[in-house]
Order: sequence, then C-alpha cells, then structure tokens
Amino acid sequence: MSATPKPVSKLIEAFGRLPGIGPKTASRLTYFLLRSGKEDALALSEALAELHSGTVFCSVCCNISETDPCAVCSDRARERDKVCVVEEPLDVLAIENTGVYKGLYHVLHGHISPMERIGPDELRIRELVRRIEGGGISEVIVATNPTLEGDATAMYLAGILGPLGVQVSRLALGLPRGGDLEYADRVTLAESLAGRRTL
Amino acid sequence: MSATPKPVSKLIEAFGRLPGIGPKTASRLTYFLLRSGKEDALALSEALAELHSGTVFCSVCCNISETDPCAVCSDRARERDKVCVVEEPLDVLAIENTGVYKGLYHVLHGHISPMERIGPDELRIRELVRRIEGGGISEVIVATNPTLEGDATAMYLAGILGPLGVQVSRLALGLPRGGDLEYADRVTLAESLAGRRTL
Repeated sequence: MSATPKPVSKLIEAFGRLPGIGPKTASRLTYFLLRSGKEDALALSEALAELHSGTVFCSVCCNISETDPCAVCSDRARERDKVCVVEEPLDVLAIENTGVYKGLYHVLHGHISPMERIGPDELRIRELVRRIEGGGISEVIVATNPTLEGDATAMYLAGILGPLGVQVSRLALGLPRGGDLEYADRVTLAESLAGRRTL
Repeated sequence: MSATPKPVSKLIEAFGRLPGIGPKTASRLTYFLLRSGKEDALALSEALAELHSGTVFCSVCCNISETDPCAVCSDRARERDKVCVVEEPLDVLAIENTGVYKGLYHVLHGHISPMERIGPDELRIRELVRRIEGGGISEVIVATNPTLEGDATAMYLAGILGPLGVQVSRLALGLPRGGDLEYADRVTLAESLAGRRTL
C-alpha cells in the first residue's frame, strides 16, 4: 500500500521526466506546490499548456517565436547583412544579452554529431543556405559551442557557405574575462596563445 | 525589444518561482519542453491542474491524501495504538520506505520556529491532542527533524502530551549507517556518545 495520493505521484513522475530533476527534487517541488496553495500550481499548469500553442517557428531564422517572421527578423533597424548562426534558441538570448550584436540570427536546433546520429540534414542548414542564396547577406558569424560537435558543425558550415561568396567567421576562443590564468585548462590556454592579438 | 516569445518567458517565470530553480534552470527546462514536443508539457500541465483538485487533508492524521480518512488511517491492519508525529508529508514517505513502522502518523505541517513566527497554534497540534484524548493511543513517536526547530517542537510536544498518559519517545540521534567516524561532525559524535547502548 502506498502512502502517496495518485495526483501527487503523477506530478512527481511528470517533474522527474525533466532534465536534471531526480525523484527527490521532483517530490520536493510537488510538496512545495501542495503547501504553497492552488495559484502557483495552476499558473504553472497554464503556462505549460500555452507553451506550444502560443509559439511558432520563425520561417526565416528558425527561432521559436510568437509571430512569423519573428521580432528580430522583422526589425528593419537591425544590420540585415549579418547572420549569427547558433545551435539553440537559448544561445540567441545569450548573444542578445551582450547588447553588442545588432545583426540577424539563424538557429540550427542542434549540432552535427555522428555519435548521436545527427547529420547536416537533421539541422536547419538547408534553410540557412537558401537564405544566403536569396542574397543580401555578407557575413555569417558561426557561434556554435566551443565543443567537438560545435567545431564539426562550424567546419561543415565554413565548407558549404564559403563558395556562396559570404565571409564566414567564428567566435574567438580564449581566456574568459575575470578568469585566472593559473586555473585555466590547458586547451583554453593553448587556444588563447594561438589567438593572441597585437596590442 | 526582447527575443523571447511571451509564452516562453511566462513559463520561465513560473518555473523560476519553484524552490531551488533559478532563472538559468528555468530557461533550460522551458527550452527542453519546447524541443521535446507537446506531450511532455501537456502531461505536466495536467498533473499540476489535478494536484489540488485531486487531494484532500485526512481529517485524522492531517496528511495529504486522495480519500478522507487516508489509506493509512483507514487500514485496520496497522498498529493503531502508535502514532508517529512528523513535520511534513514527505517524512511519512521516508518512514514508510523503511518498512519497519506499522503504526499510524500525524503530520504537523511545519515546526515551531519563533524566528519564522510559527507557534504551536500554526501547526496541527490541536488535532493531535484531540486524537490522543479520544483514546486508544499508547505511544507517540516524535519524528521531527534533528534541527533546532525540530528539537523545540519535540520538547513542546513532550510537555503537553506527557500529562495525557501516553508514552512520548523520539528518534535516536547518532552516527548515520555507512558514515565514517573521522568525518562525523562534533555534535553528531557527541550525540552518539551520549546515546551509546550496552551490547
């Protein structure tokens, strides 16, 4: 006989399917919501229900958006000859938060990874090529993650975008600002040496 | 101008109100659900909506339950003269999982804490006293947390339950099984010395 009511165990299970949330955290969240009253649980429930129904993919940049085309793609004030290619929608936010980039974006929704059987066809690369063939774009900034998969994706993109007559660049690798040379890992330090700039 | 669609930021905000979930985790969870498809988000949404509508407080033990009285309280096979007093519904689960306790429970829904302005009247202590006055209970096992607040609650309960003619006991304090004496904290080690048992 279980001491857990079914609605409680059902929610614990649903929370537990989220990444990084184990059974203990799932229980804690559930009992927090039980204690905190109806409103919090219902607000979260409603937000979840509207998540997919209220969003679409932007047909230009493939980012998740409320409108198609998205707010960035339809903003005439942005530098429309630059496209920053990222792996995920969250990466767009990260770059927007820097406040220094005023160009457009393209979201691949993943990276090339033979291990996970993700090839170029599984990503939104076709859409990117079509966009560039459409004209008006002079620079593509590849902002994939500084990982093996991000590197592979960047190399592949450089290979197919170069012949289209656009400049392809990639985010600089090096020491993170505020970091400590002493604690930097070997690879990062080597990258920052290789990428050293004349003062 | 924000690059985040409103349904997305609404869900990030709702996730962020949960304990232990900061803005970064809230975004990661939201974008995970965006990627993983409609079903997961809707299942979680539904479970949340049913959380409060599908549960009641057991009028006997004050635990959260599907039925009133709850499955434990209405189980005639349990030892009905023992009541284990815990702070939270999750504590009932923890004790049930040991498989060694066959008595009943009473959930206080908190602990005495003058700092948080929680006195005995904010807890389900009145209900417990009434239950004991009703008769049939010979032992009350106070299983509040081994913290300052848990101690204060246990002392208070011992004071008011003793005169009612029931035996009041408390969970043993000592070294956790599998722990290492060398790494035990001073207080725990002192408790385990004070509570030493003749072999």
